[in-house]
Amino acid sequence: MKFQVLSKDGGGNARTGRIETARGTIDTPIFMPVGTAGSVKGISPDELEGLGAQIILGNTYHLCLRPGDERVARLGGLHKFMGWERPILTDSGGFQVFSLARINKIEEEGVRFQSHIDGSHRLLSPETAVGIQRNLGSDIMMSFDECTSYPVTYEYAAESVKRTIRWAKRSKEAAKGSDQALFGIVQGSVFPDLRQMCLEALVQIGFDGYAIGSLSVGESKEQMMEVMNRLAPLLPENAPRYVMGVGTPEDLVEGVRAGVDMFDCVMPTRNARNGSLFTWQGTLNIKNSAYAEDPSPIDPECGCYTCRRFSRAYLRHLYICRELLSYRLNTLHNLYFYLELMGRMREAIAAGNFELWREGFYKRMKSME
Amino acid sequence: MKFQVLSKDGGGNARTGRIETARGTIDTPIFMPVGTAGSVKGISPDELEGLGAQIILGNTYHLCLRPGDERVARLGGLHKFMGWERPILTDSGGFQVFSLARINKIEEEGVRFQSHIDGSHRLLSPETAVGIQRNLGSDIMMSFDECTSYPVTYEYAAESVKRTIRWAKRSKEAAKGSDQALFGIVQGSVFPDLRQMCLEALVQIGFDGYAIGSLSVGESKEQMMEVMNRLAPLLPENAPRYVMGVGTPEDLVEGVRAGVDMFDCVMPTRNARNGSLFTWQGTLNIKNSAYAEDPSPIDPECGCYTCRRFSRAYLRHLYICRELLSYRLNTLHNLYFYLELMGRMREAIAAGNFELWREGFYKRMKSME
Repeated sequence: MKFQVLSKDGGGNARTGRIETARGTIDTPIFMPVGTAGSVKGISPDELEGLGAQIILGNTYHLCLRPGDERVARLGGLHKFMGWERPILTDSGGFQVFSLARINKIEEEGVRFQSHIDGSHRLLSPETAVGIQRNLGSDIMMSFDECTSYPVTYEYAAESVKRTIRWAKRSKEAAKGSDQALFGIVQGSVFPDLRQMCLEALVQIGFDGYAIGSLSVGESKEQMMEVMNRLAPLLPENAPRYVMGVGTPEDLVEGVRAGVDMFDCVMPTRNARNGSLFTWQGTLNIKNSAYAEDPSPIDPECGCYTCRRFSRAYLRHLYICRELLSYRLNTLHNLYFYLELMGRMREAIAAGNFELWREGFYKRMKSME
Repeated sequence: MKFQVLSKDGGGNARTGRIETARGTIDTPIFMPVGTAGSVKGISPDELEGLGAQIILGNTYHLCLRPGDERVARLGGLHKFMGWERPILTDSGGFQVFSLARINKIEEEGVRFQSHIDGSHRLLSPETAVGIQRNLGSDIMMSFDECTSYPVTYEYAAESVKRTIRWAKRSKEAAKGSDQALFGIVQGSVFPDLRQMCLEALVQIGFDGYAIGSLSVGESKEQMMEVMNRLAPLLPENAPRYVMGVGTPEDLVEGVRAGVDMFDCVMPTRNARNGSLFTWQGTLNIKNSAYAEDPSPIDPECGCYTCRRFSRAYLRHLYICRELLSYRLNTLHNLYFYLELMGRMREAIAAGNFELWREGFYKRMKSME
């Protein structure tokens, strides 16, 4: 994997870049649609390509439980399994094991947990997490980490971050000989010195990219922004910077402004399934009765398949009836919006007017309801 | 609407034909995918076109409840509402009102029922059923009928069939001035003389096409085949013949052999959502663990998107995980199979070797499990 910064916004930290992988080029800043269990819910690989998705995310935790990473390996890897030929980033499983599974014990070895699917006893450790990701054959792997919840005491966070650093070393060891890239994850909750310590230790170990973890886990928006704004510019200049699990369109704009290159979040896909749709004028909830006979598209400014072909009235009807097509058309729209948002930011940065673009974005982006 | 018989199979009743409507041509025999509430579940209009669907069915009962036929009319009709430009046939609401709603009273005026959605009190009558279909703007409307369940006494069936004839007259009256075609529905359960009486009365009234109703409602396969085989050839030669709500691939083959031109059924779409998939060698259930690591497509002989791109192993995984993409990919496959089946029958009839084709079909079509 190669990474190159292509342009930087005048006074700020925002930047465009290019990640080159054996499976294709990724223009940064980029948003990665989440394909939890080997599919971006309701969307075909061809549609993802049509949306301009350059990289998607697969969840190590989900895939190791179902269908099982060894099975995926026997079937030729995740790309072949799900019919997606462009790059895939797999997460470490750290976030899901702490949010979905029943944790039995966090020990030096790793995390002992019970599957939320069948209750089976499992161990997720630097070695197993990287082993799973090697079986999946992703283009970018994440080192195994502890994702701390919020709030957390300074004492616990300090213990945890030291363990995450030791796990990062072991993750790197476990990745030896693989041609898959490996990113490190900076932990440390909302404590600046812990984040700083973790970052320095990870740089010392050396990774292909650096991520900020444990954001959007319960802390306030201000705290999240503070961590992102302080930490992102400190991540190595010559490697991709990735903020995990974030966030709203506004979060992405602020992340890009802070110098972040990569994002993933279930928000566009999950919100779509709940009828919450993003537009350049703010969000709208399609179940609102105001749209019952509205012949206009979700967003007149949007060029997605859903907006080109269907009215708010029809989409509201599909949503009210819980029709399968509802989830799909809404998801197509929201993903298009997120990917288009990233494209517009890349353009603005390259043109050297990101700050101006950002001001305009906020002026128009106000809630429609 | 114009209908023309193009070719007939040598000794039998099977025939090919062409229905011409303002919205396009329909090659018969044809299968109509069911778009219950304004969408074929999970499938976009473009995909339907890609599958070669020439006409789809919309349900009067569902659409009058949600979003409401007057609303659809204000939004420009069902075609515009759902983004489907080819022909649509709407049913009479008769079958659904008897199978889904709480019937309060069947009277001469019509059927008083309570909506299964919100419990509201409604009347479905020849005038309201046709009025709804006029609001929806379908290309082919069905006259309002009573769909008798099975078993039913001769006495009740006789009363019912006479009422259905009176309703058919009123339906025709209600359709006056419309450029939408109107089909009559032959009722009479499993009683030959009642079916015959109904058929003659409907021909007397005069319709653009003739359907056989109340099949596949609980009677045995033999009884169904007997009604279909006896009745279909008696329906007017120069009008489309339509068997409603039928059936399995075998039922379609037998229907075509009896001289039927049109079919609709939820089987390909509903079965797909339950993981039951049709192949040229029989059906398979994708949840079977035998497919867990099977890299082959559902049917190596099939040219559908699902079979061209995805393995049984992946489709099984999606089904087990209840992924939205599962329902969609399975539905695409089953609809492709049904439409391909009709296409192969049209070819065989036109080539004059339908009986030979049918023998070959049955030889290969045996259950895989």
